[in-house]
Amino acid sequence: NIPMNILKSKIAWTDFKLNSDGMIPVIVQDYKTDEVLMLAYMNEEAFQKTLSCGKMTYWSRSRNELWTKGDTSGHVQYVKELLLDCDNDTILAKVSQVGVACHTGNKTCFFQEIMKKEGQTANPLKVFEEVYKVI
Amino acid sequence: NIPMNILKSKIAWTDFKLNSDGMIPVIVQDYKTDEVLMLAYMNEEAFQKTLSCGKMTYWSRSRNELWTKGDTSGHVQYVKELLLDCDNDTILAKVSQVGVACHTGNKTCFFQEIMKKEGQTANPLKVFEEVYKVI
Repeated sequence: NIPMNILKSKIAWTDFKLNSDGMIPVIVQDYKTDEVLMLAYMNEEAFQKTLSCGKMTYWSRSRNELWTKGDTSGHVQYVKELLLDCDNDTILAKVSQVGVACHTGNKTCFFQEIMKKEGQTANPLKVFEEVYKVI
Repeated sequence: NIPMNILKSKIAWTDFKLNSDGMIPVIVQDYKTDEVLMLAYMNEEAFQKTLSCGKMTYWSRSRNELWTKGDTSGHVQYVKELLLDCDNDTILAKVSQVGVACHTGNKTCFFQEIMKKEGQTANPLKVFEEVYKVI
């Protein structure tokens, strides 16, 4: 009954600073494209399950239950890297996303535009910087 | 006294779903590098101030005050784009970061490693995909 491929955390759950609901928010980012996919929340059980099964597991605040993403949709998020912020109250998860992250069918949950400044799409410097970074 | 360059929101504050503290979490991402910089929180005043001054403004939960990032440090975050997620309870802000985002001097607040899977840094496919994307 000992899981063979359990992932080891360098930081204990008790070192996390929880929000007023007793959870820690998790920013989920595609490890290949760097796209931000969603924000979800973990309690201790969700954190430990994520480490033991290698698939992102959250606490669903709407359904009030543990939720290993992809269990019903197949849209699993395999954990690649977990990072903690400077004041220990937010996790950044880099994941390998199977299919799409959003239940609407969008790749990312962030598809509603609130506001966008003009003229930032055409940025030749950005292209050069990115090519340079890759080479 | 009319601000000439006020940014217009396509979505009203009242359409946001607030957390139990009456705020909305904001994921802050560098619009050029796609690096996730920090997570902060906005109340309505912070949201409106962000739009009116063009600089990311949050509600500081520790100091209990409105906080236009960079006012004391100079590390301003100019807002480029604001996106809302599918269930209206999280904002993704793409920003132009002056200097560094973290008070520790790190570029991003996410510099503490919780866990990292082996073998994901050397990914030749990723390099090709990125070069292709840029070209």
